[in-house]
Amino acid sequence: MIEFARLLGNVREKKPLIHNITNYVTINDCANILLACGASPIMTDDPDEVEEITGISDALVINLGTLHQYTVPGMFRAGKRANALGHPVVLDPVGAGASKLRTETALRLVDEVRFAAIRGNISEIRALSQGEAAEHGVDADEADGSDLSAALGMAKALSAKTGAVVAVTGTVDVITDGIHDCLVKNGHPMLRKVTGAGCMLSALTGAFVAANPDEPFEAVCAAVISMGLCGELAHRRLGSLDGNAGYRNYIIDAVFNLTAQQLEDGARYEL
Amino acid sequence: MIEFARLLGNVREKKPLIHNITNYVTINDCANILLACGASPIMTDDPDEVEEITGISDALVINLGTLHQYTVPGMFRAGKRANALGHPVVLDPVGAGASKLRTETALRLVDEVRFAAIRGNISEIRALSQGEAAEHGVDADEADGSDLSAALGMAKALSAKTGAVVAVTGTVDVITDGIHDCLVKNGHPMLRKVTGAGCMLSALTGAFVAANPDEPFEAVCAAVISMGLCGELAHRRLGSLDGNAGYRNYIIDAVFNLTAQQLEDGARYEL
Amino acid sequence: MIEFARLLGNVREKKPLIHNITNYVTINDCANILLACGASPIMTDDPDEVEEITGISDALVINLGTLHQYTVPGMFRAGKRANALGHPVVLDPVGAGASKLRTETALRLVDEVRFAAIRGNISEIRALSQGEAAEHGVDADEADGSDLSAALGMAKALSAKTGAVVAVTGTVDVITDGIHDCLVKNGHPMLRKVTGAGCMLSALTGAFVAANPDEPFEAVCAAVISMGLCGELAHRRLGSLDGNAGYRNYIIDAVFNLTAQQLEDGARYEL
Repeated sequence: MIEFARLLGNVREKKPLIHNITNYVTINDCANILLACGASPIMTDDPDEVEEITGISDALVINLGTLHQYTVPGMFRAGKRANALGHPVVLDPVGAGASKLRTETALRLVDEVRFAAIRGNISEIRALSQGEAAEHGVDADEADGSDLSAALGMAKALSAKTGAVVAVTGTVDVITDGIHDCLVKNGHPMLRKVTGAGCMLSALTGAFVAANPDEPFEAVCAAVISMGLCGELAHRRLGSLDGNAGYRNYIIDAVFNLTAQQLEDGARYEL
Repeated sequence: MIEFARLLGNVREKKPLIHNITNYVTINDCANILLACGASPIMTDDPDEVEEITGISDALVINLGTLHQYTVPGMFRAGKRANALGHPVVLDPVGAGASKLRTETALRLVDEVRFAAIRGNISEIRALSQGEAAEHGVDADEADGSDLSAALGMAKALSAKTGAVVAVTGTVDVITDGIHDCLVKNGHPMLRKVTGAGCMLSALTGAFVAANPDEPFEAVCAAVISMGLCGELAHRRLGSLDGNAGYRNYIIDAVFNLTAQQLEDGARYEL
Repeated sequence: MIEFARLLGNVREKKPLIHNITNYVTINDCANILLACGASPIMTDDPDEVEEITGISDALVINLGTLHQYTVPGMFRAGKRANALGHPVVLDPVGAGASKLRTETALRLVDEVRFAAIRGNISEIRALSQGEAAEHGVDADEADGSDLSAALGMAKALSAKTGAVVAVTGTVDVITDGIHDCLVKNGHPMLRKVTGAGCMLSALTGAFVAANPDEPFEAVCAAVISMGLCGELAHRRLGSLDGNAGYRNYIIDAVFNLTAQQLEDGARYEL
């Protein structure tokens, strides 16, 4: 049993400040979804500034989308500072497997920084647990998603290697801390049509682990289920003329209005 | 009496081109709110390009969000060029007080560039008028906002130091040019749940001061009141499923549809 | 006769991956409009990463908005790699004519990279076909747009110089490959009130030429007509409180829901 009321309540009550070193495609959506869930965002990636900003924040989210060599050193500096301060750090290895810069940066990050949570699609998690892999852009290979046991195996391997809670999101989401596993069936296929659905989930994961630092597994499960459920709630709101732009707004709006009761009624998961 | 019809009419009629050196979180919203009010946006921050772009623009807005060392020199070059050309310059010292890079850059900017207007929250204005201060991310410390006379004191000090019209936005907004003061009660608490509400106001301020260059105090008041009123109008439009994403869109839409009559009827301010 | 059903069907069926080196103002909208039309976006501009990403993509779109010296070398590296691989490359010379950096970069790009399509407003196309020109920001000089034969002349000159299909968008859009010309009357004046309407069209053009590589002229025509028609469909959806933020969402939503039947019924063009 995941105690949604308590986990979400902690986010809303503690209003954690989440430092994001993230990509420029979805940075606005990440900031707004953090505000929607009750957290507060701060986005900065200048290598000489990030340690200070991490110092005043409650958690750090590192997202590799639109990666620049210029900002990579800041990821390490912020990550190490967060580790020293005991702040949870979340990794979204966007595009790991798609380029040397991304794969190598992701591999070095999990080597040098201790992550509370790592969230990616199956292609990205495979790249991190096994090395390089081909990828259809930054979206997961669809065929991979159908193989749940393979996903769980890779997630467990990466969790064992890093100590992080690992979430592999796809048609069914797989979450593991190496001891406990969770399969999440919330979500909607149309989430694939919104740029940054994964990035927004990673930001949300930062808020949940920051507000629930002693329960990272439950926090990640609650974040993944919240995003999936909001994807469903937003989909029900779509009119005949709405498309992916309206859907994006409705997803953030659903997070804004999300209640513990909705989570308890709508969560579809197996521990 | 603020002559809204004339001040807003000038923006709509002159369609000033506003050069923004700004952050990557809210850059799209800033561009769209400038278009909404009748101005035209141009966003560029390459240090070797900014002087030329400032040269063809009617005003410059410098916003310190997601500050990079790489773009800092361009802020000075553009600011000095705008000064030389007599174009108004607006400063939004996002996060001043939160990091050395931001505080020092903001302090150097007010030292070396002449600003027509400076708009920030109380934490940022304090950092500029008094030096460094702790900050809860890039959002203002809520406790501070309740102390209007302290806010006015800091704004007056910063105005005296810089010659700028200074606006401190919070639950009640305080605007001063050192001689005249204005308290604005427009706005809605939900504006805090939209990333970039402050950035959008600073962009709007650029449009108003560009179109009304001889009345910077009135122009800043009109911009602050317009944004606050649009926050109210947008809030009235919210349905039960709407959240901060819908709200963001409704704010920009309200600016797009804003009339002088609405401003005259809805403005709540004391001179 | 433009075969919309086949051209759009190819985008939806092939789901081309489009690599975008683009500006930070409209990058999110470009990603979402690519998803809306059935394509898949990947945004990256680090000079050392772009060749690899271009290698796994089906087309490349280079957009000069918010140009940085830092990312310029990557435009050449990616463009040359795409040429070597036979992938179509699209250029959106945002702001060419407005600054030396943009004009010179655009001129060097058309010199060193072979473009399948170039899309810009009349000021930008003039800067490319004739050299430097004054510009009102990144928006076209309105007076220019009324002179269709001048626009067609410049487009033909640029097409002859580059081998690209050239699209000059304005009140009436002009498209030429040097042999065939197309005038498009779709669109709505309110598209000028949305930042990135041109950028979104350029991204869409990348999707259409990637999915229809042997018919670049027809592909560009279909993209331009699709965007214009979606601007009309979105405008019909506007309520009395909607403004340019709602409009932006409705445009992307209209692309998401666009059918070949709508294109056949709504296209207004002359070959």
